[in-house]
Amino acid sequence: MDVGIYGLGVMGSNLALNIADNGFNVSVYNRDNDKTEIFLTSNAHKKINGFKDIKTFIGSLKKPRKIILMISSSAIDEVTEQILPLVEKFDIIIDGGNSHYKDTMRREQELSSKDIYFIGLGMSGGENGARFGPSLMYGGSKKIYELIEPLLNKIAAKTSSGDICSAYVGENGAGHYVKMVHNGIEYADMQLIGEAYFFMKRAFNLDNLRISEVFEKWGEGDLSSYLMEITSKILRYKENNEYLLDKILDVANQKGTGKWLSIEAFQLNVPANLIFESVFARFLSGLKHERVIASDILKMDVDFIKFDLSDWILDLYYALLVSKILAYAQGFMMLKAASVNYAWDLNLGKISLIWREGCIIKSVFLDKIKLAYDKNPHLINLLFDDYFLDIIKKHHKSLRRVVSKASEIGIPLPVFYASLSFLDSYSTNYLPANLIQAQRDFFGSHSFERIDSKRGEFFHSVWE
Amino acid sequence: MDVGIYGLGVMGSNLALNIADNGFNVSVYNRDNDKTEIFLTSNAHKKINGFKDIKTFIGSLKKPRKIILMISSSAIDEVTEQILPLVEKFDIIIDGGNSHYKDTMRREQELSSKDIYFIGLGMSGGENGARFGPSLMYGGSKKIYELIEPLLNKIAAKTSSGDICSAYVGENGAGHYVKMVHNGIEYADMQLIGEAYFFMKRAFNLDNLRISEVFEKWGEGDLSSYLMEITSKILRYKENNEYLLDKILDVANQKGTGKWLSIEAFQLNVPANLIFESVFARFLSGLKHERVIASDILKMDVDFIKFDLSDWILDLYYALLVSKILAYAQGFMMLKAASVNYAWDLNLGKISLIWREGCIIKSVFLDKIKLAYDKNPHLINLLFDDYFLDIIKKHHKSLRRVVSKASEIGIPLPVFYASLSFLDSYSTNYLPANLIQAQRDFFGSHSFERIDSKRGEFFHSVWE
Repeated sequence: MDVGIYGLGVMGSNLALNIADNGFNVSVYNRDNDKTEIFLTSNAHKKINGFKDIKTFIGSLKKPRKIILMISSSAIDEVTEQILPLVEKFDIIIDGGNSHYKDTMRREQELSSKDIYFIGLGMSGGENGARFGPSLMYGGSKKIYELIEPLLNKIAAKTSSGDICSAYVGENGAGHYVKMVHNGIEYADMQLIGEAYFFMKRAFNLDNLRISEVFEKWGEGDLSSYLMEITSKILRYKENNEYLLDKILDVANQKGTGKWLSIEAFQLNVPANLIFESVFARFLSGLKHERVIASDILKMDVDFIKFDLSDWILDLYYALLVSKILAYAQGFMMLKAASVNYAWDLNLGKISLIWREGCIIKSVFLDKIKLAYDKNPHLINLLFDDYFLDIIKKHHKSLRRVVSKASEIGIPLPVFYASLSFLDSYSTNYLPANLIQAQRDFFGSHSFERIDSKRGEFFHSVWE
Repeated sequence: MDVGIYGLGVMGSNLALNIADNGFNVSVYNRDNDKTEIFLTSNAHKKINGFKDIKTFIGSLKKPRKIILMISSSAIDEVTEQILPLVEKFDIIIDGGNSHYKDTMRREQELSSKDIYFIGLGMSGGENGARFGPSLMYGGSKKIYELIEPLLNKIAAKTSSGDICSAYVGENGAGHYVKMVHNGIEYADMQLIGEAYFFMKRAFNLDNLRISEVFEKWGEGDLSSYLMEITSKILRYKENNEYLLDKILDVANQKGTGKWLSIEAFQLNVPANLIFESVFARFLSGLKHERVIASDILKMDVDFIKFDLSDWILDLYYALLVSKILAYAQGFMMLKAASVNYAWDLNLGKISLIWREGCIIKSVFLDKIKLAYDKNPHLINLLFDDYFLDIIKKHHKSLRRVVSKASEIGIPLPVFYASLSFLDSYSTNYLPANLIQAQRDFFGSHSFERIDSKRGEFFHSVWE
């Protein structure tokens, strides 16, 4: 058999079928044998062989063996431990789940000392992606990549022009890192769409169907994306003649990758505030009980002037577009910082292409990012590319109008706010950080640099 | 000798003098003997004895020995290792530095297994505080606290009404945790003052002296605080007839406690965005090179209408006051979450009193927090106390006006923005998180709760 899948949850099952459909012989195994049985019964496939015993499962594989773990990230260490005595030198264990990149780095190192390859394979696209073509971000040995590339290329998503949404991104934890950044951007994208919905609902009292139509229209242009498409569908979806959306509790859950990336931003000193304010918005939604109390006792009297959608619809569109650019720019700032910090030499243009299809943030927008890095692989910041620069310079006022209006009438748009505060901070030559340095020097003799002196020279003043 | 100080940097030296002035016999030791010599020569004090040898230093101490480490947090493990063979059961090692609370928890556990007490003593107030009265946050064994309390009470800061700014806060890492929260609030406080300064400078083109006068006046009322006082002094301070502040490079450094607290917020799911946006503002200031480029190629054309300070001065004052309330509320949200998570049973009112004098965030404002928790020790959120509620309800419009204006004219005020977005999110009963749950269910079958069903019941829809 060409490849083994360990774990037959939804993702593992779908991936097995995807690989088999692409002409490879797949061995499958699940710790709970009943699950294997159910899978084989409901998915008879001449290329798939099920095993009830781990030894025969691994024994069935062609050498070097390729075993893809499709299990919870909390089980990776245990299962690796279980597999280890059954594999041989040069065999390959692939973690296809959402592991933290630091765990992947540790595992890769531990196993490489035993001449076993450990690959962290970032995979996006949910169930549907796994079944019909996910985005694949390979992190691990470059030498071994050549062995696995044909398989990954076959099962991955393709763009309409035939580009493959799978690539080697870097050594050890790079694949899972890039997947984590994908998820962070996804958080920001979802929250921005949520805020645009909220603004239309609260400021104009628009019906869900009207909002759905707006998103549908917007999804035809620069904002065309999977998330825009499903949002439009969600808004018009009814159950028993009522909008289901209106029945859903406003408490957003999460699996943790957004938190990981936010923590990483603090560790690498990257001001990725659209991303971490999106995570914060989910935390805040979780304080439902407190919010209900606060909405009563902290009810604030605001001047709510009725205003007309037609005056605002373009502003809202451009506010969303500009903010989306900033969210992606921050994601790529994270990639750039990580590339230096972990010596991964990430190819940012290639990464944007991986996300072009197959994953949750797939959009036409990513083509523009690819083009920007094709034009200049050493781009300091995505915002400095002409295409994005032009949009921002033409349309920043729309973002200003939305933020200004929302702040007056009390509609909370945390990520739109973060977006404008980042844009204005980033493009300000001289910030008030001089005062902070002066305060630190005053109370703690922490010293400061001077504008009339070389960088790296520090001074202290007595101040009184 | 009553107590030993290991480490004669600025903080250790000042603390030794403070303790000796309060009538205790102090042994001092420094790894580099020259430093000990210099300290003893320049600070002859009949209560202080210097030692050149670690063995005689520790041997000089009354049992149970009390050794305060005043060294870099990175050296704590090594020095503890060095001391350990020289101490006996029931001796007490006190870490008076800025260690991460998790390290303190680990050390406390390791040493308690050897019947040695390890205390994490949060200390604030900089050099001056150490010399004449710091804020002290004791984390560790409650039994041992009784032994050390007389010393701590004597050397700590006192309020004008005689309250002592030192207390037992909780077991193991609690003292260092509370110190970390103090520092996080300090970051937000400094950044808010920085933004108020920036708004006056950019929007009204005010001279430093005028801004200094504004802060001086503000410092007479509810905003009276140490930071306000030094800011006013900094603004008017001249060197060679020029304002020194204008010569300081706008790149803010940090020692890391703000990052620690931000990461902690993400780990405990607390939306403490004023705190983490303050840290982000320092990161952003560090991108000086990129900002200089962006200020040129991303120059945005904004409508800058001249406006008059007299119309705005009260708004700015109240925007600062409301934001300061929110920053402290978030600090106390962190304390509350930590208290539950680490089973510390923190007394929030007592903690606010510790900070009343001696530390960087000392202010009259903290009395109001103390009163709020005296009135109701189980206050869900500081914002729900009548005093704070009243200020917010009366003055939120000032914050709105400042944010609205800054967003129009392009003055970046990241923490004022965060402040308003938190206020409006927190007091909104129904947020757009329902859409995020719907999206997650659409692409990943992550399920959702319903408003017409019990909490904890999850549903899935097919959506198409």
